[in-house]
Amino acid sequence: MKKKSVGIIAEYNPFHNGHLYQIEESVKATGAEVVIAAMSGNFVQRGVPAIADKWQRAEAAVRSGVDIVIEIPTVFACNSAHNFAEAGVEILENLGADFISFGSESGNIEELKGIARVIEENSEYIENFISKKTKDGWSYPRARRAAVESITGASAASLLDSPNNILAIEYIGKISNALPVTIMRTGPGYNEFETTEKFASATAIRSLINENEDISHFMPEEAKNIFLKSEPVDKDVYFRLICHKVLSADSTDMEKAPAGGEGLANKLKASIRMCSNLEELSESLKSKRYTRTRIDRFICQTLLGIDREKKTDNYIRVLGLSSNGREYIREVKKSETCRLPIITNINKDIKNFKGIGYGISVDILAADIYNIAAGKDLYRFSEYLRRPFCE
Amino acid sequence: MKKKSVGIIAEYNPFHNGHLYQIEESVKATGAEVVIAAMSGNFVQRGVPAIADKWQRAEAAVRSGVDIVIEIPTVFACNSAHNFAEAGVEILENLGADFISFGSESGNIEELKGIARVIEENSEYIENFISKKTKDGWSYPRARRAAVESITGASAASLLDSPNNILAIEYIGKISNALPVTIMRTGPGYNEFETTEKFASATAIRSLINENEDISHFMPEEAKNIFLKSEPVDKDVYFRLICHKVLSADSTDMEKAPAGGEGLANKLKASIRMCSNLEELSESLKSKRYTRTRIDRFICQTLLGIDREKKTDNYIRVLGLSSNGREYIREVKKSETCRLPIITNINKDIKNFKGIGYGISVDILAADIYNIAAGKDLYRFSEYLRRPFCE
Repeated sequence: MKKKSVGIIAEYNPFHNGHLYQIEESVKATGAEVVIAAMSGNFVQRGVPAIADKWQRAEAAVRSGVDIVIEIPTVFACNSAHNFAEAGVEILENLGADFISFGSESGNIEELKGIARVIEENSEYIENFISKKTKDGWSYPRARRAAVESITGASAASLLDSPNNILAIEYIGKISNALPVTIMRTGPGYNEFETTEKFASATAIRSLINENEDISHFMPEEAKNIFLKSEPVDKDVYFRLICHKVLSADSTDMEKAPAGGEGLANKLKASIRMCSNLEELSESLKSKRYTRTRIDRFICQTLLGIDREKKTDNYIRVLGLSSNGREYIREVKKSETCRLPIITNINKDIKNFKGIGYGISVDILAADIYNIAAGKDLYRFSEYLRRPFCE
Repeated sequence: MKKKSVGIIAEYNPFHNGHLYQIEESVKATGAEVVIAAMSGNFVQRGVPAIADKWQRAEAAVRSGVDIVIEIPTVFACNSAHNFAEAGVEILENLGADFISFGSESGNIEELKGIARVIEENSEYIENFISKKTKDGWSYPRARRAAVESITGASAASLLDSPNNILAIEYIGKISNALPVTIMRTGPGYNEFETTEKFASATAIRSLINENEDISHFMPEEAKNIFLKSEPVDKDVYFRLICHKVLSADSTDMEKAPAGGEGLANKLKASIRMCSNLEELSESLKSKRYTRTRIDRFICQTLLGIDREKKTDNYIRVLGLSSNGREYIREVKKSETCRLPIITNINKDIKNFKGIGYGISVDILAADIYNIAAGKDLYRFSEYLRRPFCE
């Protein structure tokens, strides 16, 4: 009989004590015997390279208690919360996750489900509202928040002020079979740079790393050791790759990025010569209408050449397994309930599955670009040679 | 009345005493009052970035006695000797050059004209010969040499063993109105790494620069001072830009490079992961059939996205002028004998001339890529802001 499992959608950038806490609490709340994580790859959802590559982040997660780490394909992961959540949930449900657990500032699953229902039932009204307001120059998140407020009133809509609640609502909206579970975020909350004795947000940890500060309090030992060996992207080289891509690409092609389509390509081309790093570039393009995240994601999609007109099916690319996870995957394969291809060796598996070629090609390029910017060997670290980490 | 002028096709990579000698001897031989150089831009004919950017190389040339420096458009310059020579000669003749002077190992203009005539009169036979032999895996230069030998015998054909003779013959074949003049190369000859007290080849000088050796004996003072201030391309960053381009480009598009078309794109894609620098990459692709130069040029054309199906008219882009040269250009403009557009400010001039858009766009990208790899400010050093050096 299949073991009871809980799925988590994550970035683990890097894996820290808050993630460990979420896993432990999820297991406690659900009684799950297997923990499955659907994780972003080398580029995270907000459109920047992860602080360690996906193989290292997957290993850190497995060594810290996750049984199965699956990559959310780059075309979905480096995309809107909507696409990210949809792909992640589809992966977890196809792997037979009985529960899907996510952090939230609310911690109250009924409250979150309530808002999710309102959004679903009023989708047409909300879309029209957003479309009108964004034409007036509002950003998408602001317009969406106002649309919901016009239905539920200020108090319920204020749930949408917190980033993890927003993601949680996206997950709830996508879940078909699994039971949604939420764990209230502990430690640092809104002020994401605050730290406590044991907890710091991934944002705070990345900032400490930038300043060469000690981060060992905030991460499980195993994760820290892996992280210390990681070779992150050289920011200057990464920015030069972006300059090269932006100055050589055609605006019309650039506008095909999922976050493009409103003249952002020409704005980007016009700004890039004035900026000497990615931070400056994103800030220079940010406006009331375009959030910093939208800009970052547009730049990343441009670099990776992601084209919203090119379609790919979703797939389950295995990055890491505990022995428990290996056994679980074997059961899933036997049961034939999984409708998505399970990929452990891209060389073999690409030929066997139709409809996933575009998605895999973007994952390969994402890894290559990450390796180029990190100065890693393009052969030894290529996707063609990497195999899942098995504990 | 127009002053008597001599044209020279050059790379000045960097400008050295041998170049000065050629200028002085050309003036002596022709009595010219104005010296015009048609020079390759940021990327030289064999397909690598120049050791200093084109504006610095133009300034060095003007300060060392050249009156007018014109850029050979990148699409022609970073191309076969045939294209390079054709564009250079067209520029010089349109500027009314009475003589075109070039170095050669032979030093005997009649001898070189003789071979040029043989090649022209037997072009169909030679092309068939080359086509057959390259299909058997011969390199283009070897096949051409053998074709000529089968007509002239070994002695005359041996002229084709020397690189400057080969270029000289190309020039002669393209010249319509000007008088061809050749200056015998002095100092180091076949052994291009040999140096004398005053003379070293550009190749030898570049190699000395790489080893941080003193080069001041071999260059005019003014040229040396400019060169010492130049910011060359960072080879590692340049190689990473190539990796990014090769791994993200489509093979079919890459094959459209003028030096492509025989599966070189896939060979390049397959080799690049195994190599950690450009030298290794070129060497790994070199074969009996593909010379090192052909490979280097193919890589460079790929990086610049040069597409042989996209056409551009030739044009006269001014990089540097002495006061004598300025006056000469003014006369040329007045006389209306020049059929090519003369470009001194691309912002204005692009709009005024049709048919040169593609060529100029490649020059702009070539400068951007050079600047990205050299770590130069992409705004201050952009083609949109650069103006000809005027002495």
